[in-house]
Amino acid sequence: MIKPRTPAGTLELLPGEQRAFNHMLEVIGRNYRRFGFQPIETPVFELTEVLLTKTGGETERQVYFVQSTGALEQGGAPELALRFDLTVPLARYVAEHEHQLAFPFRRYQIQRVYRGERAQKGRFREFYQCDIDVIGKDSLPVRYDAEIPAVIHAVFSELAIGPFTISLNNRKILRGFFEAMGISDGEHQALVLREIDKIDKRGAEAVAQTLKGEGFNLPHAAVEKILGFVLRRSSTHDSAMAILAELKAEHPQTAEGVDELAEVLTLIKALGVPENRYALNFSIARGLDYYTGTVYETTLDDYPQIGSICSGGRYENLASHYSKSKLPGVGISIGASRLFWQLREAGLITPDAQSHMVLVGLMRDEDLPEALAIARELRGAGIDCEVQLEAKKLAKQFQYADKVGFSYMVLYGESEQAKGVVSLKNLATGKQVEIARGDLLPCLSQARDWGL
Amino acid sequence: MIKPRTPAGTLELLPGEQRAFNHMLEVIGRNYRRFGFQPIETPVFELTEVLLTKTGGETERQVYFVQSTGALEQGGAPELALRFDLTVPLARYVAEHEHQLAFPFRRYQIQRVYRGERAQKGRFREFYQCDIDVIGKDSLPVRYDAEIPAVIHAVFSELAIGPFTISLNNRKILRGFFEAMGISDGEHQALVLREIDKIDKRGAEAVAQTLKGEGFNLPHAAVEKILGFVLRRSSTHDSAMAILAELKAEHPQTAEGVDELAEVLTLIKALGVPENRYALNFSIARGLDYYTGTVYETTLDDYPQIGSICSGGRYENLASHYSKSKLPGVGISIGASRLFWQLREAGLITPDAQSHMVLVGLMRDEDLPEALAIARELRGAGIDCEVQLEAKKLAKQFQYADKVGFSYMVLYGESEQAKGVVSLKNLATGKQVEIARGDLLPCLSQARDWGL
Repeated sequence: MIKPRTPAGTLELLPGEQRAFNHMLEVIGRNYRRFGFQPIETPVFELTEVLLTKTGGETERQVYFVQSTGALEQGGAPELALRFDLTVPLARYVAEHEHQLAFPFRRYQIQRVYRGERAQKGRFREFYQCDIDVIGKDSLPVRYDAEIPAVIHAVFSELAIGPFTISLNNRKILRGFFEAMGISDGEHQALVLREIDKIDKRGAEAVAQTLKGEGFNLPHAAVEKILGFVLRRSSTHDSAMAILAELKAEHPQTAEGVDELAEVLTLIKALGVPENRYALNFSIARGLDYYTGTVYETTLDDYPQIGSICSGGRYENLASHYSKSKLPGVGISIGASRLFWQLREAGLITPDAQSHMVLVGLMRDEDLPEALAIARELRGAGIDCEVQLEAKKLAKQFQYADKVGFSYMVLYGESEQAKGVVSLKNLATGKQVEIARGDLLPCLSQARDWGL
Repeated sequence: MIKPRTPAGTLELLPGEQRAFNHMLEVIGRNYRRFGFQPIETPVFELTEVLLTKTGGETERQVYFVQSTGALEQGGAPELALRFDLTVPLARYVAEHEHQLAFPFRRYQIQRVYRGERAQKGRFREFYQCDIDVIGKDSLPVRYDAEIPAVIHAVFSELAIGPFTISLNNRKILRGFFEAMGISDGEHQALVLREIDKIDKRGAEAVAQTLKGEGFNLPHAAVEKILGFVLRRSSTHDSAMAILAELKAEHPQTAEGVDELAEVLTLIKALGVPENRYALNFSIARGLDYYTGTVYETTLDDYPQIGSICSGGRYENLASHYSKSKLPGVGISIGASRLFWQLREAGLITPDAQSHMVLVGLMRDEDLPEALAIARELRGAGIDCEVQLEAKKLAKQFQYADKVGFSYMVLYGESEQAKGVVSLKNLATGKQVEIARGDLLPCLSQARDWGL
């Protein structure tokens, strides 16, 4: 006998939770499609030499390698490895199918990725990413950067997990500002930006201490200037535009980034995103050197400790390792497994409060044909429905319905048959009514209107 | 520069094909839910010792092992392996979460599985399986076997890939018949059944020759009797019931299986499956020893060469390796990747003939706010919609629309603005009309009624 258990670092759900998780993925996918993003899926593994184009990085050390039994016996370097994000597979996909794709290429991809993370609570080795990217050929106007927040807004509005803020910045503004300050060495700038990026987590005071302290040794005045710059936040659309104008006047080196961001903000407004849902935040740098223009982070207003639930930005060239074409792009990623786990921890996930599933009970075996006929009618109308195929005590059937998470139960027994009715019970409220057999479908379709 | 390419044996699709494939998976999943099956997902990898409970089998030799960079450096046996089907993960899942599940446990699972197959056309190393199973605790009445064909019928009716037949048999009938014929040794019986299983592919005559020839050496009369038995087919519900009655009279040893199959057929009819969609076929044995009662295969009437597109059956005990509980079950699997590939080869897949996606064109940059407003309105009504964010020549925009696969294009340029209308073009028919701006949404929502 072998002890059944899942590998560490995986998020395996019970069916009720899985329904809630699937609902999250469906909302994300539906809204991605709504904005004209096209689906793709890539294999879970890539050829090792294709996947690992760079050497050394942290991600590289977290890669899972794949070998068939035969390959394992023969020894040698593994030919395959599991994808660790959806960006490298996208780059490979676009380069491989370049001539069959229409550009700008707008794709969404919702799949699991794999990282050999140290096992700890809330850290996953297998997790879903939900990505969108728009890839231009040769060029991609900055207005594409404005569409992304509109998609983020649509997704998180429908997910209804509370108020959220999409924070925007532009790497060119950061670069211009720091160069004007004399922090122009790329590596030095990256180190400072990494600290700045921590302001929302560590607080401004702690970050200031780090920048003044050993390693950075920035003078007090410089640190004050940096903080004065990065701590500015907009509260309305107009205040955001005013801050940008101010910034451009004070620091001419930031002009290019400021102009881009102003265009993005103007279009975000035209796209109908409410102005309390987006804000400037110059402390957002995003760890990756990858991003070159607009960058995004999204946070839940009531749960700042969760951190960014959706991040991304603009990049210069997607597939330089695989193609001579210049393929600039902009995109974001939602880490759905981590988000789901965090929302569940915060009590924001209720397993399928709205399952709308119906259980047709069975009190006497002889009623099975009628129960099946009822189910057939409901299914024909698009209602998810199970029939108790074995007559059991009613208490046992209710227990089963509760454990699975049904919303309604239909009962048709001796008394119902005599009266020519069926009983319909709302399992959440406990309310039970007798209705004419012919009213069952309209009643279930409009349960709320019927006071059920 | 690295040549971008996918690993052999994977099915990577272009976006239009991916939409068609996703549609297939959605239809399958929706119909599974319609019958009260609950979703689960399991990790792509399992602990090796959990996954590989038996030693030796062919499947075992096709397993892919997974190792992190660290584990690979350390050497030693791989701790993880990719799932090769959804049945072993289901067994592990049910055993691991037994006390949190409601029984009979009805789950569906649509995920990819991995097998180190020899690379050849139409053979995949990564492919989707779409499984349903009902798992009982201690026992599971045979009536559950009848629900499965109703689900198969619902799925393939909605997929609309042509007429199909669900063939049914019962392993107890086969066992009873062969035991009565003196072919009672388990191994011998399995070998004969394996040949019988090939009748639909090889033809009865070829199989008869094999059974008479070296290795089997069955006498002519025995082979005739076997063929006479396994070649019987029903054409209607009544003829199926008559064949079963006849069989029971002729071969009393088949009685148990006959009674089960008769009950299953009676309920299939009560579930509303049309009688031209199911038939008895005593040559179906299913390769696996795993099945003990009802077995199913489904074939497309017009494409017999494709073989079974959906198979499964009843088994005695799901999780004997992981649990002391007796967990009998019944289930089926649809190999969606292979099915999609075969339908595409047969010309039965048209990439998203009904995409319903709308492209809002842009002739002048100044019209962008209006184009965005139109898109916002369409999206609000649930229509998938992209806006051309850059003004381009109309021919280029049509070319893009065609390549992506849009169904409609909305145009709002100088002349439309002057007249206070928008132009709506059906990209399949080429028909273009000018309509009042306010009519766009009702027109698109009911495009067919409007003669578009």
